[in-house]
Amino acid sequence: MENPNVPESSRIRFRARIATRWSDEDNQGVVNNAVYMTLFEEARYRYFHARLDANHFPFLLAQTNVRFVSPGRGGEDVEVECATTELGTTSFTQAYRVLEASTRRVLCEAEARLVCYDPKTNAKRPIPPELRAAIEACERGG
Amino acid sequence: MENPNVPESSRIRFRARIATRWSDEDNQGVVNNAVYMTLFEEARYRYFHARLDANHFPFLLAQTNVRFVSPGRGGEDVEVECATTELGTTSFTQAYRVLEASTRRVLCEAEARLVCYDPKTNAKRPIPPELRAAIEACERGG
Amino acid sequence: MENPNVPESSRIRFRARIATRWSDEDNQGVVNNAVYMTLFEEARYRYFHARLDANHFPFLLAQTNVRFVSPGRGGEDVEVECATTELGTTSFTQAYRVLEASTRRVLCEAEARLVCYDPKTNAKRPIPPELRAAIEACERGG
Amino acid sequence: MENPNVPESSRIRFRARIATRWSDEDNQGVVNNAVYMTLFEEARYRYFHARLDANHFPFLLAQTNVRFVSPGRGGEDVEVECATTELGTTSFTQAYRVLEASTRRVLCEAEARLVCYDPKTNAKRPIPPELRAAIEACERGG
Repeated sequence: MENPNVPESSRIRFRARIATRWSDEDNQGVVNNAVYMTLFEEARYRYFHARLDANHFPFLLAQTNVRFVSPGRGGEDVEVECATTELGTTSFTQAYRVLEASTRRVLCEAEARLVCYDPKTNAKRPIPPELRAAIEACERGG
Repeated sequence: MENPNVPESSRIRFRARIATRWSDEDNQGVVNNAVYMTLFEEARYRYFHARLDANHFPFLLAQTNVRFVSPGRGGEDVEVECATTELGTTSFTQAYRVLEASTRRVLCEAEARLVCYDPKTNAKRPIPPELRAAIEACERGG
Repeated sequence: MENPNVPESSRIRFRARIATRWSDEDNQGVVNNAVYMTLFEEARYRYFHARLDANHFPFLLAQTNVRFVSPGRGGEDVEVECATTELGTTSFTQAYRVLEASTRRVLCEAEARLVCYDPKTNAKRPIPPELRAAIEACERGG
Repeated sequence: MENPNVPESSRIRFRARIATRWSDEDNQGVVNNAVYMTLFEEARYRYFHARLDANHFPFLLAQTNVRFVSPGRGGEDVEVECATTELGTTSFTQAYRVLEASTRRVLCEAEARLVCYDPKTNAKRPIPPELRAAIEACERGG
């Protein structure tokens, strides 16, 4: 597998501070791998929620490539960096990096492709203009 | 992102039947993306549990590349195909395919690299002989 | 706290067989307490799904009293007994018992009160006739 | 069912601010009932973690009585009030109240009984002195 393509931290403009929960640890005493999907999702939610006052995503996750760098712990703050790295017609690509806030240790990096869709038909559809504008504004850091 | 490399169903010898739960659906009415990580993990658990009577995994997930093909529903049986496609010195690669049991619709495909480690030091270590034997036996379909 | 009021197993007509997942164990190596809420919910879903082909519940959980009898394990089949013990105008009461399938060991017992509501206004409303009929049929064992 | 016995907010000395996640909503668009168990657990973890630098709890949940007052939303901050209301020989009782931080709306109230145990034998054992001291210090607000 090729590594996910994630920009350097200095080039990422959006960060979400998220607390892992005690219960995010599995019986091996590390943050369970599925929880990272939730951390990316939560960062994505905040990325858009800051500009679109919506509680639903108008897109679905189509693909994600996740590299687990170092085991995480429950009950710790993490910082999730989130950037949109490609913006197409019906889909866009984001990159994420999860760092343990107290140590700056990288826990995880990922890339994800998200596709806009019509929830009634499940068919792809163009990125809505307000979503495109939100992405462009976030990436300008405005 | 390149697609995960998943063998055809006819070449995969291990299948786990797993029930999704009503609560696996998120507020968009589809099985949440993080749940698929749990489905892969559960298939992996059963793949090894059949041969190693263990409740802990002697490895951690190092990377996974997941392609979401079609939205899933809660409260449905799925079949998760699971194969070990590469067997190295300290790590091995698995492939997964999730199908809705009633319709044979493919929901998701993934590839994962798993690394054996020492839980005390977090250092990599060689695949233990009993794990290697379990993998070889599963792949022979024995 | 008073104990939840749960009928003897011999008087309960509905049972759901559910598999716990490896990931249902928390870092203390037991099925996490929150998972039992999901097991009750899943039994409730199947109780109604058998008679009402619905993917949403027309009610919300108003109260639950749960007694944890013995620690559970991930990756095990459990049997969840489910009975409706009171049927009012806008609400009804259910009782649950979770047993480990292989040993018949009781893991958990609970009582829950569920209230029908209008999802648009969140106001209570009478139990819909088809829900009342489903409950009566389940309790007759028909 | 009797109501859980929860002191007035003004008499509770410990509060934890916790963020619900987008994924905490289920397909009915409300915070799923099982998530409240996790919110109580997280408040409990922080209550003890402030004084005992431990990542495991030396007790298990024996019983909980939970009243759901008003539906919660994902992606919102909540405040969880947590008090120890009884302190016995091998067990203690806690009370919790979850409020939506922005509106002070009460979402949920609960009472829980927790029993100290030996993880090797699962037998009850006396509350360890350091745990008792932590509880007494938290309740003095010291």
